[in-house]
Amino acid sequence: MIEDAVKLLRQRGVSLPEIAALVREIQLAYYPGLTEEECLEAVTAVLKKREVQNAVLTGIALDMLTEQNLVPEPLGSIIRNDDFLYGVDEILALAITNVYGSIGLTNFGYLDKLKPGMLGRIDRAKKGTVNTFLDDLVAGIAAAAAARIAHNHRA
Amino acid sequence: MIEDAVKLLRQRGVSLPEIAALVREIQLAYYPGLTEEECLEAVTAVLKKREVQNAVLTGIALDMLTEQNLVPEPLGSIIRNDDFLYGVDEILALAITNVYGSIGLTNFGYLDKLKPGMLGRIDRAKKGTVNTFLDDLVAGIAAAAAARIAHNHRA
Amino acid sequence: MIEDAVKLLRQRGVSLPEIAALVREIQLAYYPGLTEEECLEAVTAVLKKREVQNAVLTGIALDMLTEQNLVPEPLGSIIRNDDFLYGVDEILALAITNVYGSIGLTNFGYLDKLKPGMLGRIDRAKKGTVNTFLDDLVAGIAAAAAARIAHNHRA
Amino acid sequence: MIEDAVKLLRQRGVSLPEIAALVREIQLAYYPGLTEEECLEAVTAVLKKREVQNAVLTGIALDMLTEQNLVPEPLGSIIRNDDFLYGVDEILALAITNVYGSIGLTNFGYLDKLKPGMLGRIDRAKKGTVNTFLDDLVAGIAAAAAARIAHNHRA
Repeated sequence: MIEDAVKLLRQRGVSLPEIAALVREIQLAYYPGLTEEECLEAVTAVLKKREVQNAVLTGIALDMLTEQNLVPEPLGSIIRNDDFLYGVDEILALAITNVYGSIGLTNFGYLDKLKPGMLGRIDRAKKGTVNTFLDDLVAGIAAAAAARIAHNHRA
Repeated sequence: MIEDAVKLLRQRGVSLPEIAALVREIQLAYYPGLTEEECLEAVTAVLKKREVQNAVLTGIALDMLTEQNLVPEPLGSIIRNDDFLYGVDEILALAITNVYGSIGLTNFGYLDKLKPGMLGRIDRAKKGTVNTFLDDLVAGIAAAAAARIAHNHRA
Repeated sequence: MIEDAVKLLRQRGVSLPEIAALVREIQLAYYPGLTEEECLEAVTAVLKKREVQNAVLTGIALDMLTEQNLVPEPLGSIIRNDDFLYGVDEILALAITNVYGSIGLTNFGYLDKLKPGMLGRIDRAKKGTVNTFLDDLVAGIAAAAAARIAHNHRA
Repeated sequence: MIEDAVKLLRQRGVSLPEIAALVREIQLAYYPGLTEEECLEAVTAVLKKREVQNAVLTGIALDMLTEQNLVPEPLGSIIRNDDFLYGVDEILALAITNVYGSIGLTNFGYLDKLKPGMLGRIDRAKKGTVNTFLDDLVAGIAAAAAARIAHNHRA
């Protein structure tokens, strides 16, 4: 099922090396020798977890069904406008971030607020595209991968 | 927006007095004089919270879109079969249960495991109906309402 | 550090085989051939997770410091009386339960409500003993181990 | 009990107007007319919630008991060194942040990562002072108050 999640991410314009680049950006200050390969390995490990796959499949399905005007109102408009009081996108992202414990929370919030790198590109997607869940899912995956790296460097 | 949530619940066969009956069942042992009116008031208060409405709208939309075969695979089959490794239904329910703090967790788990009263009926819905999210949402609302009653009886 | 957590649990009267017996009790109906060994292996795997060890060390320390009258008021009384509006004990247990995703939530609530087996014994500890955190921690470990077994039987 | 929490915060060097200043800093860009009074009102509303009080009392008690060398090892050292793999401090903060739903998550992470204003001062406390929980608790209160303001400006 990891293939389904990875394929869906790519279909929405997100590659695993781009997520790995986010991870490296937030962790390089703490682990100076951190390589792109290690970050990519961590992102892949996160995506192997079933609860991560389920959150990714669900969030992207809601983005796509909203684009296709298949989500009933008022929910369709709430998702389309990325209403910041919606909160279900953050809930799914939290389920991802938590796979390596609560230490990922801080990095998730930081990424979600500042939207560095490709997160900004997702957020400014062209009109008609709905990425309400996608940016939070990607920030959640990157934050979980950063937590995994922190755990591994200690063990 | 509470009307949207209540209407959607009713459309899926769930009335607020039935949820209130669940609340009374789990709290009557602790508050012997607990009335149906007080339980209904607590259920209504829970449903006035925006994050509860958003979870209800999202979960029921996923149930309905799955029934209509509009959710892409493999997610459609996962939701249709109520795969117990899915977990996103519990995540949405937790977001509801938490509106009055973590003390609702225990009652949520109890209701979700034993499925007393109308929860059993939802769970055994006729073939073709998808209630994967609905039963968890209702258990979450009942558990949050029970937590509200516990808070109010102390204050 | 797993030794610290296991030693502390034993010091408070809880052995890993007893937790494994709880796991077997809630999962035997679903996996008829489930052995005590497999349940014990799952409990050990849960306790190897750093976030579980941290929750166990923290919760039991609060129980013990409360027994020794070292926790300042009003917190000392809240913990000593196992005030059901406290909620921090459920929060720590949730951090444990979540290590294998949200599917452990239901079993946690069920165990915490009905307190079968050794959970009842912990809960009825002799006067002077404070087990406010301990019973939730044990229910959380058992629920996480049950979730792990469910994941493994699918993979 | 709000007095106990406020007194304990002040005893640890944190005043409510300082927390309100953090709230104003993160929300002023979105609500240009936002006053200090409104931010202080939101911080007070957050602190009136029992689950917030319980998290504050518990976290600060652990900081203080660690300072007094009363927390058993290895937990004492973990808390004293603010080990970033500990995670229980983030868990308590999350319980606070969640009182107005998941929308507070992003601001919590942002504050906890960048530690603007008084959060930096807490974090760089003089040797011998343990503020492992305190900075997360304050970031959690500020994030929840920001979420409350966002809800109120919509309603």
